[in-house]
Amino acid sequence: MNPLIHPDRLFPADETRRAIARRLYAAIKDLPIVSPHGHTDPRWYADNEAFADPATLFVVPDHYIFRMLYSQGIPLEDLGIPRKDGGPVETDKRRIWHRFASHYHLFRGTPTRMWLDHAFATLFDIDKRLSADTADYYFDRIAERLAKPEYRPRALFERFNIEVIATTESPLDPLASHEKIRQSGWTGRVVTAYRPDPVVDPDFDGFLANLEKFGEITGCDVATWEGYLAAHRKRRAFFKSYGATSSDHGHPTAATADLPRADAEALYAKVRSGKANKAEAELFRAQMLTEMAAMSLEDGLGLQIHPGSFRNHNPHLFAQFGRDMGADIPTRTDYVHALKPLLDRFGNERDLTIILFTLDETSYSRELAPLAGHYPALRLGPAWWFFDSAEGMKRFRELTTETAGFYNTVGFNDDTRAFPSIPARHDVARRVDCAYLAELVASHRIDEDEAHELAQDLAYRLAKSAYKL
Amino acid sequence: MNPLIHPDRLFPADETRRAIARRLYAAIKDLPIVSPHGHTDPRWYADNEAFADPATLFVVPDHYIFRMLYSQGIPLEDLGIPRKDGGPVETDKRRIWHRFASHYHLFRGTPTRMWLDHAFATLFDIDKRLSADTADYYFDRIAERLAKPEYRPRALFERFNIEVIATTESPLDPLASHEKIRQSGWTGRVVTAYRPDPVVDPDFDGFLANLEKFGEITGCDVATWEGYLAAHRKRRAFFKSYGATSSDHGHPTAATADLPRADAEALYAKVRSGKANKAEAELFRAQMLTEMAAMSLEDGLGLQIHPGSFRNHNPHLFAQFGRDMGADIPTRTDYVHALKPLLDRFGNERDLTIILFTLDETSYSRELAPLAGHYPALRLGPAWWFFDSAEGMKRFRELTTETAGFYNTVGFNDDTRAFPSIPARHDVARRVDCAYLAELVASHRIDEDEAHELAQDLAYRLAKSAYKL
Amino acid sequence: MNPLIHPDRLFPADETRRAIARRLYAAIKDLPIVSPHGHTDPRWYADNEAFADPATLFVVPDHYIFRMLYSQGIPLEDLGIPRKDGGPVETDKRRIWHRFASHYHLFRGTPTRMWLDHAFATLFDIDKRLSADTADYYFDRIAERLAKPEYRPRALFERFNIEVIATTESPLDPLASHEKIRQSGWTGRVVTAYRPDPVVDPDFDGFLANLEKFGEITGCDVATWEGYLAAHRKRRAFFKSYGATSSDHGHPTAATADLPRADAEALYAKVRSGKANKAEAELFRAQMLTEMAAMSLEDGLGLQIHPGSFRNHNPHLFAQFGRDMGADIPTRTDYVHALKPLLDRFGNERDLTIILFTLDETSYSRELAPLAGHYPALRLGPAWWFFDSAEGMKRFRELTTETAGFYNTVGFNDDTRAFPSIPARHDVARRVDCAYLAELVASHRIDEDEAHELAQDLAYRLAKSAYKL
Repeated sequence: MNPLIHPDRLFPADETRRAIARRLYAAIKDLPIVSPHGHTDPRWYADNEAFADPATLFVVPDHYIFRMLYSQGIPLEDLGIPRKDGGPVETDKRRIWHRFASHYHLFRGTPTRMWLDHAFATLFDIDKRLSADTADYYFDRIAERLAKPEYRPRALFERFNIEVIATTESPLDPLASHEKIRQSGWTGRVVTAYRPDPVVDPDFDGFLANLEKFGEITGCDVATWEGYLAAHRKRRAFFKSYGATSSDHGHPTAATADLPRADAEALYAKVRSGKANKAEAELFRAQMLTEMAAMSLEDGLGLQIHPGSFRNHNPHLFAQFGRDMGADIPTRTDYVHALKPLLDRFGNERDLTIILFTLDETSYSRELAPLAGHYPALRLGPAWWFFDSAEGMKRFRELTTETAGFYNTVGFNDDTRAFPSIPARHDVARRVDCAYLAELVASHRIDEDEAHELAQDLAYRLAKSAYKL
Repeated sequence: MNPLIHPDRLFPADETRRAIARRLYAAIKDLPIVSPHGHTDPRWYADNEAFADPATLFVVPDHYIFRMLYSQGIPLEDLGIPRKDGGPVETDKRRIWHRFASHYHLFRGTPTRMWLDHAFATLFDIDKRLSADTADYYFDRIAERLAKPEYRPRALFERFNIEVIATTESPLDPLASHEKIRQSGWTGRVVTAYRPDPVVDPDFDGFLANLEKFGEITGCDVATWEGYLAAHRKRRAFFKSYGATSSDHGHPTAATADLPRADAEALYAKVRSGKANKAEAELFRAQMLTEMAAMSLEDGLGLQIHPGSFRNHNPHLFAQFGRDMGADIPTRTDYVHALKPLLDRFGNERDLTIILFTLDETSYSRELAPLAGHYPALRLGPAWWFFDSAEGMKRFRELTTETAGFYNTVGFNDDTRAFPSIPARHDVARRVDCAYLAELVASHRIDEDEAHELAQDLAYRLAKSAYKL
Repeated sequence: MNPLIHPDRLFPADETRRAIARRLYAAIKDLPIVSPHGHTDPRWYADNEAFADPATLFVVPDHYIFRMLYSQGIPLEDLGIPRKDGGPVETDKRRIWHRFASHYHLFRGTPTRMWLDHAFATLFDIDKRLSADTADYYFDRIAERLAKPEYRPRALFERFNIEVIATTESPLDPLASHEKIRQSGWTGRVVTAYRPDPVVDPDFDGFLANLEKFGEITGCDVATWEGYLAAHRKRRAFFKSYGATSSDHGHPTAATADLPRADAEALYAKVRSGKANKAEAELFRAQMLTEMAAMSLEDGLGLQIHPGSFRNHNPHLFAQFGRDMGADIPTRTDYVHALKPLLDRFGNERDLTIILFTLDETSYSRELAPLAGHYPALRLGPAWWFFDSAEGMKRFRELTTETAGFYNTVGFNDDTRAFPSIPARHDVARRVDCAYLAELVASHRIDEDEAHELAQDLAYRLAKSAYKL
């Protein structure tokens, strides 16, 4: 037994529940991975090139990791994170790895630690804990393996037993990697998802230029509201042709609007002029969620709403390193009032799936479960980002199931750009769900045959059906 | 042993705590039911007619059930819910029952499932799980039993071991059923409760007409503020003569006010003119909570505040089916600022009992427990509505006990209009409380003799004393 | 075995986790107490006089105790709490003790009960539960012991194994007791902490007079903004000479500001004129947090922010008895927006420690852990006040660790003015942390050797390093 991945990890300690959890997990642990929402780079699957080295694979792209190191005083430069001004940063990968390894204790009790240990053990057959002492051993072992053909992205994809994975692209993306994958004849199923924030959010960096490019790409006249909407329709169809089954929207709030056509036209004109104020930008994003839902009813894409992150909270870091540097902080998020315009128009639709996520756990039992437990169009996305963790997932189930049940939820999303962590993340979700089901069985709230069915649903079937994959 | 109602359900899985929970529960499980707050129909007890059929008894009136079915795409018409326009809905009770039965898996992990299984097992001696396969068996068995005299409301009332139950009536209700019960000589104790929302909330459907009727019924001049208050006093006395020991107030927020008399008069005039705006309507409701508290000091009725529900969130459904269709959604609720005017005036009264409820669990530890743990006039009502559930009640205790203790809480309310669920609901509450007490004993925070005393208090004595029943 | 203090109290019930918790606790239970934040009276250590009697030691000064008694209808006068108008209150200490004893059941399930039982058992060798029946036994036993030299403050300090304790003083305090301790030659380490609310908060009782006194004491010209800041600098240095390693700030919100110098000057002038409105008072407090952080960078004091208490919620009680009467109620507290001005300026500083506390548990996972898990200058203070309790501490760990880890937290603060409860409070924290760590070990999230290291960190090392003690 490899001590990094104990077979009973995340199961309850008492024998009654642990035994049930083991049985449930044994039956679902080898199910294929369905990953309907994530941020892996499609070039990996298209180009199938070897990953560079341990630091570049694990440390440099993972904001969970460098955020924690930064919080304890380690400059991002020392971790090799590239600066916007091209200024000097650490280039010695082994030194980066050593810095990480010698601070590995900071991750005790975090999901990052579980994901990493899982990858170290299952991919690299390592059974010693990472530390300053074992840093070189790790670095050499991982580097050696990464050079082998069976560690190329497509081989790992197959080894991970991924049935289908979604990436996330901007409407401005030509989907060249997706086309290359298609042309390659490789059978791995990689689909895209439509993430129009760059042309929907007036506060997005380069929004106006993005709009121009959006018009060029689609051949639509984005000078008009009608043309702009037509461009979305056209681009959604294009994304759909590359397997997309959903759109995704990362707005600061969950605000929605349902303006009269003339008002929406005028608002778009204001936004396109670059003179929209904060409230108008917010209203435009709000209106666009409703427009996207209308298009979803036409083309069948699911609508994912990921609200509530205060992006780039640290201006100093943003100036030096740009976005996604671990400085996005959750905020209080209202759903009951915010979603009402959208729900008033489309909440009762049976052929529409709107998947809600949150970074504000107070909304689980107060707002999200009651909404999803009523409106036919609503489903709850899994515990997200900071809550993609053992305790976070446990709270998600405890706080939503009694009101929304299991069948208004959509299974697991790994939501990751850290490729080697994908099996670990799904494994954590499966274990936590089995532990939760074991509690329901042990306390005689459901029977074990039902728990087996639910375990399958949560690990596999709900994601496939909610995302039509 | 009937597998639908395992004797250890809701108890902890480990042997130490489970054994303690069993001992505590054994000593209180047969205590009479005190139901100080609920919504059963007094006509049942007055007329004592047989319940019609399984669908009409279980499905049609229970918004917990049809809300969940609706969320998964089943039209309310298909469940026989009457439309406001009298349009066609399913009338075949067996087909309604089949639709419900074939979707019973949706309720896995919900309190509805526990309540129903308890009723099926204890009332109808059924020991097979409800499903499409067993739907006919259930329907026939239940229908057959409902025809028997021992399934009439009064017989069930006695079988349920109900010591006293409160119904909830509008001030405009003549309490004819309560009078009929009194005249009948039946000894079952059914009391009313004063729920003046229809004549207190300017946003209530038909408010102005209700005011007129309020004046007629009471013979008071509701054209004046004084007369309007006098009407309340008179009607409260009338309700008290039918056993009422409390009033109940279902406002959108917990706002209270304590206006100078002239301002209150002017506000009432504005409200009565039908021209009050949103803020004035809110202020009037706020003022009336304080007026009701003043009357409580005179007549001894307890004051229950049930704030924080966004009623009829779904306008489409409201237009078609009316209120109480499962489309009420909780909202963030402030108590610290909202209650201050009321507490400034009456918070230190020892002869007043104000019972606070919430749909916003964040207020338990942050606001409600600290308030109830200080003000003599305040008590905390039990976990309510969406939180009348195993996990909901557990969180209520974990989040309130350390600050407010047990003795600033008031025992359990079933709050239900689903008559056959009453024993199940009290049983769930008793089990969850015993499990919580077992945890305190097992972790040596209290001794077992204290836990026994507390179990009695929580199951029986606190409700009697807080509601003076 | 004394039943008041079972050796396994607060440990998990199942054998697996309990055994681990026992091992972890055994290794850290005798570590010295580091108490970096609290409110004990330095005169105790300076004068070393005997404590008066059981009621004066335990009941009269402890707002946790009399708040609960008051909530159940016992007048504060009956507990001997002095009235502001000097009106009559109970003076018979034995009668006060009896009132307390006969209501001891009110504290079931509260931390107060655990702290008291711990003190009764370990200090007074009592092994019978407090009640009306044992009240006299307790009173006599405690009174007898308090008269002995080994129950004087310094003897208890040493018996408690306190390595260092911080008291909290106003800038206007001459620190005479601290000077007296220093002169006495006693080796107990008692340091002060800088709590400038009386000269920083324009809403503080006597603020303008305090400013005058502040100028006199420091010899700085507090008529000017520069002089006022200089007075702080000077006084901080004075406090530092008496061991202070931190400042502390108890503001209604977490608002911070970073005004241009001219605006800050003008604001100070307004505040000093006594004509600042509510918003200006808030802005001044906000600005002062940033000024204090700037001074912390110079002099190395840590900055503690204790926001979110609605002080003196009960005006009736405040008028009669003054502040700290158990009528402070938590409110919703925002950190993400509130702290941004301060963090924009100083959040990336590695040589600054800002310690955040909260009374709004919703902020743990949504705001505080993400902030502390990113900004180098931020650390999280322990569960505070109403949450200085078994469940409260457990939630703190469960809600913060996965995002912030353990090393962005600062160990335990007892925060108390109840001297005999200090060992009990640290013991509860150590037990709860060991139980939490046992859960992580039992579920194979960390290894037991790591848990041992963490248990030491949480009980001892983190407090020393975060507070530089």
